[in-house]
Amino acid sequence: MGGDFAPQATVAGALLALAELDPAHSIQLVGQTAVVEAQLRALLDGDFAAHASLRHRLSIVEAAEVIEMTDKPSAAVRGKPNSSMAVGLRMQTEGLSDAFVSAGSTGAQMAASMVILRLHAGVKRPAIVTLFPSARKTVAVLDSGANVDCSADELVQFARLGATYAECMLGRANPAVGLLSIGEEPEKGNAVTKETHQLLQQTGLNFIGNVEGRDLPAGGTEHQQVDVVVCDGFVGNVILKFYEGVAPLMMQTLRNAGVSANQLEAALKHLDYSEHGGAPLLGVKGVSIIAHGKSSPRAIKNAVKVAMQAVTSGMNEQIGRRLGVAAENAA
Amino acid sequence: MGGDFAPQATVAGALLALAELDPAHSIQLVGQTAVVEAQLRALLDGDFAAHASLRHRLSIVEAAEVIEMTDKPSAAVRGKPNSSMAVGLRMQTEGLSDAFVSAGSTGAQMAASMVILRLHAGVKRPAIVTLFPSARKTVAVLDSGANVDCSADELVQFARLGATYAECMLGRANPAVGLLSIGEEPEKGNAVTKETHQLLQQTGLNFIGNVEGRDLPAGGTEHQQVDVVVCDGFVGNVILKFYEGVAPLMMQTLRNAGVSANQLEAALKHLDYSEHGGAPLLGVKGVSIIAHGKSSPRAIKNAVKVAMQAVTSGMNEQIGRRLGVAAENAA
Repeated sequence: MGGDFAPQATVAGALLALAELDPAHSIQLVGQTAVVEAQLRALLDGDFAAHASLRHRLSIVEAAEVIEMTDKPSAAVRGKPNSSMAVGLRMQTEGLSDAFVSAGSTGAQMAASMVILRLHAGVKRPAIVTLFPSARKTVAVLDSGANVDCSADELVQFARLGATYAECMLGRANPAVGLLSIGEEPEKGNAVTKETHQLLQQTGLNFIGNVEGRDLPAGGTEHQQVDVVVCDGFVGNVILKFYEGVAPLMMQTLRNAGVSANQLEAALKHLDYSEHGGAPLLGVKGVSIIAHGKSSPRAIKNAVKVAMQAVTSGMNEQIGRRLGVAAENAA
Repeated sequence: MGGDFAPQATVAGALLALAELDPAHSIQLVGQTAVVEAQLRALLDGDFAAHASLRHRLSIVEAAEVIEMTDKPSAAVRGKPNSSMAVGLRMQTEGLSDAFVSAGSTGAQMAASMVILRLHAGVKRPAIVTLFPSARKTVAVLDSGANVDCSADELVQFARLGATYAECMLGRANPAVGLLSIGEEPEKGNAVTKETHQLLQQTGLNFIGNVEGRDLPAGGTEHQQVDVVVCDGFVGNVILKFYEGVAPLMMQTLRNAGVSANQLEAALKHLDYSEHGGAPLLGVKGVSIIAHGKSSPRAIKNAVKVAMQAVTSGMNEQIGRRLGVAAENAA
């Protein structure tokens, strides 16, 4: 029920996903049954008629309440126990589903995931990881908006979460972890960053030191590729939204200069967030994938595939194991 | 003597600037006389032969010491009283020059400017302002690197400094000031941002509220253009360097897609920092313009023109007056 184009984009995205997933897998659409059913019928009678054979792999799970974007996240979780968010996540704790995807309120999804799935031992705060396209490989940036004021300990946890994510989801062996700062030298940065730099050297992670803003689009420093970049959610969110805003500016500038729309579209396709789908909320006991509020059917499809990979790679179990060990070692 | 391509780019930039400035104005080249003289001769005997008639408007001021990029800023200021940085700034306090431009170490320039020019009453920290190209008007962002851990009071001062800058240097009447955060609502952001939001509402500035990362390339929110965006120097520096890094990524991506280099160059020209020249250090009693370390002659020329405009617009006096009044009102 959540997202700017729900339920149409969500239901259409589920159909697109089923067409690409192994036939053994199914999708549960959680929401107001009548609304979801009507939407599904409209799609199968219309543009998605070719997907009719996938209908039996879709089920609808009733969730009477809807969290609005104007609802405060914590109040929404307490006050609407039968929202699609809460019902969908609860199914995971009851063993009825393996993963949850939503394009609804990010704040509510985070709050509901923490309350219903709960956090792994040794995790203080969950983090949202976002993939940044770069001149080299994509870079996983976290936190990209879940936590605005972070301690050094929390940033170190994000580094561990991000490294596990990069291994399981991006197939990067011994991923290179960078700390976002304003200079390469360990003594550059704000107080928390400087403290974090010291702590990261003792983690056993493949910590490559500070990286700067320019190293994100470059995919690393001059000398070394980076897989994971750690920052607090304030900085991460500002950069993420900045990145989303730069592409349209460049497009407009180039179009004004006479570059054809087709050329631009082809070229900038890999800078489009919908290519990457959803952002996993890392640190909770389960799989909770945050899709962009403006998700298209294609973006939802990709978010479902991200969820699928999180499950098959065992990312969640790896996070539980590694963060638990780190917490024990620290104790 | 400072900058990656000094003294060649600096001396060549001075010649380019003289060609565009009113003939009443002159430039003092501060540095090791023999080195500067040799460079000047080489240029006038070579590519800049057409500029020979401007030679009489250039003088050379001896500064025996050179601040290296490896020198710690504070130590450089204390330990090298005859650096080109120190000599050049001191001339301003002695009434021998009106403005100072350097492409040397930003940290050293900031430290030397604070020690030699000193701060205006009511200013706790100076701020570096950078112009961001946008889909609408250019946006003045500050602080872009001088201060990493900022209090709400300091961010409010940056707002006042930025508003005065936008009026004097960009000709914006009653400039719209935004606070960089992760959501439009006053309660979105980290602790310092939320406190700053409250304080900014009582300043008498044209405060339009929080702006997000996407509003920088857009030049404002959906509803309102923005002239000045306030953030701490950690966030500002990360975004600035990110922006510098995104253009090459886009260029490469588009070139790979077959867009011609000529089309790209023409289109992305206004995203080039050298078009904008130097970044004024705001809050010091005088004019101290920070040019990029990688400044080309063209960038140096533009930095000199920025210095020129800072002097003729009376920006420095305006800042002294306004910040002084604000401090008295607060006392």
